Amino acid sequence: MSDATFEPPQIAPLEPPSRLLMGPGPSDVHPRVLKAMSTPLIGHLDPAFVAMMTEVQDLLRYTFRTGNRWTIPVSGTGSAAMEAAFANLVEPGDRVAVPSNGYFGDRMAAMVERAGGNVVRVEAPWGEPLSPDAVESVLAEHAPAILAFVHAETSTGALQPDVEQLTRIAREHGALVIADTVTSLGGVELRVDEWGIDVAYSGGQKCLSCPPGASPLTLNDRAMEKVGARSAPVRSWYLDLSLLQNYWGDERSYHHTAPITNIYALREALRLVAEEGLENRWARHRRIAGGLKAGVVAMGLQMLPEDAWWLPSLNAVRVPDGIDAKLVTSTLLSRHGIEISGGFGPLAGRIFRIGCMGHSCSSRNVLALLPALAEALREQGFEVDVKEGLAAAVEAMDE
Amino acid sequence: MSDATFEPPQIAPLEPPSRLLMGPGPSDVHPRVLKAMSTPLIGHLDPAFVAMMTEVQDLLRYTFRTGNRWTIPVSGTGSAAMEAAFANLVEPGDRVAVPSNGYFGDRMAAMVERAGGNVVRVEAPWGEPLSPDAVESVLAEHAPAILAFVHAETSTGALQPDVEQLTRIAREHGALVIADTVTSLGGVELRVDEWGIDVAYSGGQKCLSCPPGASPLTLNDRAMEKVGARSAPVRSWYLDLSLLQNYWGDERSYHHTAPITNIYALREALRLVAEEGLENRWARHRRIAGGLKAGVVAMGLQMLPEDAWWLPSLNAVRVPDGIDAKLVTSTLLSRHGIEISGGFGPLAGRIFRIGCMGHSCSSRNVLALLPALAEALREQGFEVDVKEGLAAAVEAMDE
Repeated sequence: MSDATFEPPQIAPLEPPSRLLMGPGPSDVHPRVLKAMSTPLIGHLDPAFVAMMTEVQDLLRYTFRTGNRWTIPVSGTGSAAMEAAFANLVEPGDRVAVPSNGYFGDRMAAMVERAGGNVVRVEAPWGEPLSPDAVESVLAEHAPAILAFVHAETSTGALQPDVEQLTRIAREHGALVIADTVTSLGGVELRVDEWGIDVAYSGGQKCLSCPPGASPLTLNDRAMEKVGARSAPVRSWYLDLSLLQNYWGDERSYHHTAPITNIYALREALRLVAEEGLENRWARHRRIAGGLKAGVVAMGLQMLPEDAWWLPSLNAVRVPDGIDAKLVTSTLLSRHGIEISGGFGPLAGRIFRIGCMGHSCSSRNVLALLPALAEALREQGFEVDVKEGLAAAVEAMDE
Repeated sequence: MSDATFEPPQIAPLEPPSRLLMGPGPSDVHPRVLKAMSTPLIGHLDPAFVAMMTEVQDLLRYTFRTGNRWTIPVSGTGSAAMEAAFANLVEPGDRVAVPSNGYFGDRMAAMVERAGGNVVRVEAPWGEPLSPDAVESVLAEHAPAILAFVHAETSTGALQPDVEQLTRIAREHGALVIADTVTSLGGVELRVDEWGIDVAYSGGQKCLSCPPGASPLTLNDRAMEKVGARSAPVRSWYLDLSLLQNYWGDERSYHHTAPITNIYALREALRLVAEEGLENRWARHRRIAGGLKAGVVAMGLQMLPEDAWWLPSLNAVRVPDGIDAKLVTSTLLSRHGIEISGGFGPLAGRIFRIGCMGHSCSSRNVLALLPALAEALREQGFEVDVKEGLAAAVEAMDE
């Protein structure tokens, strides 16, 4: 092979289009977090970075509402934190109950199997939460070591209510509880300790409005005892908490190079959470997404979830009969630069998924989206009253 | 637990100290790359992002000198790309030959075992490269499915010369070759296709001077055939190339959220490589690190490696007798903000590790380091002639 074969590619400067991110994630990143990303690096073993790690852990504990010592950012996107939870907790042969009510339950099942565990399913239709009765009966029949559930299902826009009921049932049956809080952490009420959740993981790019790349994970002592008592090593070296504890624990000794800039960003994003106050942030998400919900309903659309499991951070809106959802989302993107998303799996073509997450969760974004959505629907012959929609949204958000 | 238990932590604005990064990585990041990191996000399935993925893959191919279709950034730091290589290539029961001549050979062994493989060792002392004879005899005796080697050993400052000899031997014995190019890619001559390397992985934060978080990996068809023919699924869902190919291949369908900002940064860092020209970049690293080497030698210090396996990107300098290496490195950091590193394992206290990587690899950095190092050594009673050191460095760098 001659050198001439390898000519340098001519690639233009980085100029991505301007977007308003109201899909299932990423959400728009706060300017302060973007600025943090451009901060020059220091080493991952620098005393100043080591001090910063403690700060990030404290901020994560606050945001998870936990006192768990084992609260860290995993060096990857949300799925890495998710796999860290399952790869460490699940030993070969362990039975693990996972939900069937959305895409992320399927992913849980895949990860359990990769870890050598056996999956049992808690059944519920896509778009609905698990019922405590269904959980009870699966746990009674199969006695799994772990019950996993999705607190906020990004694929369906369903919130899991009754978390404390689920964790109580799990405790009664001696099962540990893993909660997927990817689309709830920092935006929707979540109380890890109070609710009795043993392990929770999340991502940066949803309600924290942080670029993905360093992803929250917390485990209580009961969970870490199971990890510590493993007979077979974790099947991933990168995600092995028994090794990571040398870096994120008291020693702060080298395991792998942390994604330094992503830690900077997460720190700044979590500072914004602390400044706003977690309860205020939950309230803002309910209020703004409540405006979105009131607006689409006043425009003649329907929500997929019932109010009891409406998820403020991800609003699943039914696609009216005869409407091509893909055409709507691509029109919003190309004409207005607004990203919303369609459904997939059993909900393909049947829902729009509209995020109200973190920095994207603002009244001005809702008021920008409603007319754009109305226009795209009208072009396909679905008549909507955008004035009613805007009025209803404004009223709900002014509460 | 009452809400009062969870008061928001008071964390100061992000103001890390100013550093000159000349350790084993991260290296200083070019301002253009820092700026790219602060670019607002677009979605990971946005058509504009999908186009960008192709550009990043082209730039990676150029930098690896490969035509491999399977050339992608893995969503994590260098160790994630490393584990992606081993987790996908190694099937349970596979025999894998790994080197014993540095820390990263040990990490390879750990990852092989996590993947269910059996490790055989090619022996060489820490600080020396593998000899083709040792490789030949291990391959003849054990017939491993894979030979892994470290092209640039970050823990010892040793380059593996004779790469084409190693890959020829491997081919003769029917073994695939995995190369760790973490500390060589973009800084030290590396020709993946011409040299017959089947799989190579790297990190961003070394000679590419990119914040860690999206890490280069390339596999040729022979390697991907082995991945495709696996009977047992890869033990990590996150790193499974058979799933990742849906996202990074022609389909561009969702697997996991890519670390968007890290992809922006990698794109810009690789554009800088393409602008400089890969051969020019290799030459710069040899010239500047040659100045560092000439400088420390003229100051009366000794290099650990012989010239035949000197690694320009990471210079292992022997610690003179009676000198406390930790005191030297901590003095450089606290007094001058310069990060260099000591040795560890068998080389703890015995070497300084001085990086000349990417944007950190400049004459002004070498000329800033030499007097600072000289001063710290002099304070411990080791007399050095800093004038001679600077003169030798300048002469070598002016070549």
